[in-house]
Amino acid sequence: MDISRRGAAMPSSPIRKLAPLADEAKKRGVKVYHLNIGQPDIHTPREFFDAVGKFTEPVLAYGPSGGIVELRLAIVDYLASYGISIDLDEVWVTTGGSEAILFSLWSIADPGDEVIVFEPFYTNYNGFAAATGVKLVPIKLSVEQGFRLPAQKEIEKYITKKTRAILICTPNNPTGTVLTPEEMFVLGQVVKKHKLYLISDEVYREFIYDNREHTSALTLPDIEDQVIVTDSISKRFSACGARIGFVVSHNKKVMATMLKFAQARLCPPTVEQYGAVACFKNMHRFMKSMIAEYDKRRKVLIEELAKIEGVLTATPEGAFYTVARLPLKDAEKFAAWLLTDFSSDKKTVMVAPAAGFYASKKAGRDEVRIAYVLEEPSLKDAIDILGLALKEYKG
Amino acid sequence: MDISRRGAAMPSSPIRKLAPLADEAKKRGVKVYHLNIGQPDIHTPREFFDAVGKFTEPVLAYGPSGGIVELRLAIVDYLASYGISIDLDEVWVTTGGSEAILFSLWSIADPGDEVIVFEPFYTNYNGFAAATGVKLVPIKLSVEQGFRLPAQKEIEKYITKKTRAILICTPNNPTGTVLTPEEMFVLGQVVKKHKLYLISDEVYREFIYDNREHTSALTLPDIEDQVIVTDSISKRFSACGARIGFVVSHNKKVMATMLKFAQARLCPPTVEQYGAVACFKNMHRFMKSMIAEYDKRRKVLIEELAKIEGVLTATPEGAFYTVARLPLKDAEKFAAWLLTDFSSDKKTVMVAPAAGFYASKKAGRDEVRIAYVLEEPSLKDAIDILGLALKEYKG
Repeated sequence: MDISRRGAAMPSSPIRKLAPLADEAKKRGVKVYHLNIGQPDIHTPREFFDAVGKFTEPVLAYGPSGGIVELRLAIVDYLASYGISIDLDEVWVTTGGSEAILFSLWSIADPGDEVIVFEPFYTNYNGFAAATGVKLVPIKLSVEQGFRLPAQKEIEKYITKKTRAILICTPNNPTGTVLTPEEMFVLGQVVKKHKLYLISDEVYREFIYDNREHTSALTLPDIEDQVIVTDSISKRFSACGARIGFVVSHNKKVMATMLKFAQARLCPPTVEQYGAVACFKNMHRFMKSMIAEYDKRRKVLIEELAKIEGVLTATPEGAFYTVARLPLKDAEKFAAWLLTDFSSDKKTVMVAPAAGFYASKKAGRDEVRIAYVLEEPSLKDAIDILGLALKEYKG
Repeated sequence: MDISRRGAAMPSSPIRKLAPLADEAKKRGVKVYHLNIGQPDIHTPREFFDAVGKFTEPVLAYGPSGGIVELRLAIVDYLASYGISIDLDEVWVTTGGSEAILFSLWSIADPGDEVIVFEPFYTNYNGFAAATGVKLVPIKLSVEQGFRLPAQKEIEKYITKKTRAILICTPNNPTGTVLTPEEMFVLGQVVKKHKLYLISDEVYREFIYDNREHTSALTLPDIEDQVIVTDSISKRFSACGARIGFVVSHNKKVMATMLKFAQARLCPPTVEQYGAVACFKNMHRFMKSMIAEYDKRRKVLIEELAKIEGVLTATPEGAFYTVARLPLKDAEKFAAWLLTDFSSDKKTVMVAPAAGFYASKKAGRDEVRIAYVLEEPSLKDAIDILGLALKEYKG
């Protein structure tokens, strides 16, 4: 019995396939520092669990397909605090940011259509593209140029008759870049001129350092009908397991289409939506200190990485990742070796090979993504160990 | 800015589009009995909320993509209680039964491939087929023949080179039929002979009356590698808003493929999985009385419907729905009229027009689906009102 072509084309998670090796290392008594996943260690705000606990309906019933009104209103208020004005019917709650991406691709592209992405990019874009039959057309960025976007003309070279959208993520997973107002303006010009959608993944909106400002795609002039913003509470509220995301667009037809996809899957999980409402209403309490904590870690990371010979990285401006080029040929082999053959003082590190964050074949093979989701002393120790491992590695 | 062809092809929910009319009726002070949705009024077991409340991890982290091991083990035990033996790696937890259907279609069919369904069928199969580009090929059943399946030869007429699977639901939403061991045997023969998958939606496994027995597709001999069972806790534990489903198959390749789709969306919601574990472990406490309650309602429904002239229905054998043919031409207009123009003693009923449960054009237009999810006195009153309305209706 054959599986489908799209099933065969689906990538395995480049991060999760190393997991069994990490489990084995732990069984051998080796401590594994997880620099590989975007799973924050920051506590979920107590408001979240309080609100979940206060759910006292006797029946855990289906909610509205587009999400509960309380949460949609909270998101309207939240975006208003950034000067972004949307109507209540311009936001739907999704089951995680994942579903927001899925609904976006389903709604604006058909199998064989193309979506331009700047690589490296969030690895699961590859998965959703394979699932929906959309072809990702990568424009390669480089660590030497700090992962900055190319000029308008260069971007336009990649547009074909089949191009339907440009998909961005700012602040960026995995590179840590934050698109500048100028870069966003250029993207706005491109989508306007070529009548494309701009899908902007803004999950890390608050995770931004050195007094930079975030430019939401929703603030770009003249392309109101072309912008779809995908978002999630997973990182913002350290609630990855809640599976609450959302999608925002001023385009009524897009929103109506997304609602049809939403209706087919009935509704997002109910109780977490109340948790999300409570978090949005209390962001002032915990957000600043959370970002300050990540900023401290970021500085430790960059300082420590700078001490390792041959490692090249750009200082992350946002999110909590960086992509680092290592002085070796095959980062996937190295990442496996770290778990199977290396340890220093009974400790090792797990990193995410960056190849899975590219759509171009053979790209990113000498790079890893490092997530700074550990407390300072552990992070320092982990990067020290990475340095020792690189010295010892003969791969 | 155009939307995608698949977005345009997506059906609107035939049930949810009447909702604004019901809201308006309620604003006018009319009580609306909801016979239209499969939303049980039975209380969610207290074990569910207790378990959710006991979640004390400080971080609501990503869970495993295939679901937490505790829940997968509970499902293994649950199926064992039916004499169905599966390994731990033959079950993944999904975000609702909806996602189990989506993953099944994605994994075994490509755009343009065909899946045979017996109509009327669960309306959202239409949605997931449109979303995944799969063509549903309907075999029409009729209320006169109690929605029984046709003979093997008749079913085989619908098989083409593009057929990948037969999709069934037993006990059935919307007809209430339970496939007999003989019908299941025939389906097994067909998929074996023609090398097809059998996707069996067994969400209502326990909802079965008159001492009938459920025949799971997992018990059919010789086709172990061809069966995929989709399931959900929504109805079983009256927890529709939890969004916890699961998918079971002995086919290792199918399971590995589904896991790739699961990884792309990271994980199902975490806390509800603990709720589900607690419910599976305590089913003996609440399941019998829940089914007895539905059985009582079923008898009331059939008794009351029998009093209305011109209404034709088959006695439901399982689930909590029936499809009834009404003495009129357009059940959608009638369903709207019930909400906009009719009331008896300031009360009316909402029913689901059955056309949305068919893939064949113009089929089922004189039928409605009635869900018996109301307590006996309300149900009796609701069906009385339906009878009065049919007398008054001139459409």
